[in-house]
Amino acid sequence: MEINSLIDHTNLNASASLLDIKKLCDEAIKYHFASVCVNPIYVKTAKELLKNSTVLVTTTIGFPLGASTIEAKEFEAIDAINNGADEIDMVISIGALKNNDLDYVKKEIETIRDAIDGHTLKVIIETCYLTDKEIASVTKICNETFVNFIKTSTGFGTRGANIHDIEIINENKNDILEIKASGGIKTFKEVEQFMSMGVTRIGTSHGVDIMNESCGECDHEH
Amino acid sequence: MEINSLIDHTNLNASASLLDIKKLCDEAIKYHFASVCVNPIYVKTAKELLKNSTVLVTTTIGFPLGASTIEAKEFEAIDAINNGADEIDMVISIGALKNNDLDYVKKEIETIRDAIDGHTLKVIIETCYLTDKEIASVTKICNETFVNFIKTSTGFGTRGANIHDIEIINENKNDILEIKASGGIKTFKEVEQFMSMGVTRIGTSHGVDIMNESCGECDHEH
Repeated sequence: MEINSLIDHTNLNASASLLDIKKLCDEAIKYHFASVCVNPIYVKTAKELLKNSTVLVTTTIGFPLGASTIEAKEFEAIDAINNGADEIDMVISIGALKNNDLDYVKKEIETIRDAIDGHTLKVIIETCYLTDKEIASVTKICNETFVNFIKTSTGFGTRGANIHDIEIINENKNDILEIKASGGIKTFKEVEQFMSMGVTRIGTSHGVDIMNESCGECDHEH
Repeated sequence: MEINSLIDHTNLNASASLLDIKKLCDEAIKYHFASVCVNPIYVKTAKELLKNSTVLVTTTIGFPLGASTIEAKEFEAIDAINNGADEIDMVISIGALKNNDLDYVKKEIETIRDAIDGHTLKVIIETCYLTDKEIASVTKICNETFVNFIKTSTGFGTRGANIHDIEIINENKNDILEIKASGGIKTFKEVEQFMSMGVTRIGTSHGVDIMNESCGECDHEH
């Protein structure tokens, strides 16, 4: 599999400008990335910029703290779909998981899943704040709710994805749940390592560097 | 003025648990802080815990990136008020300010102001990402929209409030706009310095330390 098709090309900076989003979309078209991942305010813009391409638009819900109410996340998700988002990356309530209120976390995920009517849903669990037991619990909730992906990190926590996170997820996930690794991924070597563990999507703001690195020894024209 | 009455006692951590929020509220009651500042998911809980006190509940909207849509921020603000929030700290679209789309920023602030029906509104501008000119522009928008406070920082940016930010705001604000300084404020000396510049609210997670420091040489019973 070509790694470009695994990459969600990401700019979620608070201060991202229209020019930054234009650059992100141009790069995504050039490298045939899976999607651009942008904040909700830029979904309409990205959708318009990508209309003649196969690149999808991913946006984030309850991001990055995951600490908005279920009702607010639901509204935000529907609003994002209405604005043209193809894929939704939602952050769970990490506090609820810390409170061991697994029913709340499950209800939250089900609510967003049902609200977005078949669009791809990635559930961000923010592993940096979780124990192994909590990662296992929320992985099982992702199995039970039939979401598309479990995603490790927002990129705004104390660290991004690591190998140990993916091991714990793999020990607890069913065969159909996919994994998106994200947060701090900057090199081709890291991507290869995650891919070898079954990760099928990579969230990174370093997609262009990674592609250039991966092609350092090939003749691809990009 | 006693400094305790200026402090929004803050815990906006993504992983804050119910126990953390209980501790925050207990401390706020003990020290008679202005409010607790909590994520939307904990507004109902804080309101219940503080029902027999004068401590208010502040919550955040579009936090911390400010990059959700106007519609989502409006829904989130109404939801927060319905859950018992007394004061609303909203983050502006920093991207829109970077795009010099001042009409968007003004519309966004007016929309939230009108949605919360007279409750106190603090507008977070996230100074760490702004030029002096941008701080001046958004301060003038806060004048024009008659919000209660302009607030410097989320605490999740690259730095918190500093003296220079407050100087720029003071040069551009009218007589009625108040200033909340926030982000990285840890000492009584910092609070005194901000107060001497006219700041009337302090957002900090170090309120207890600051109170203990301020009373190091007095006989107050806390």
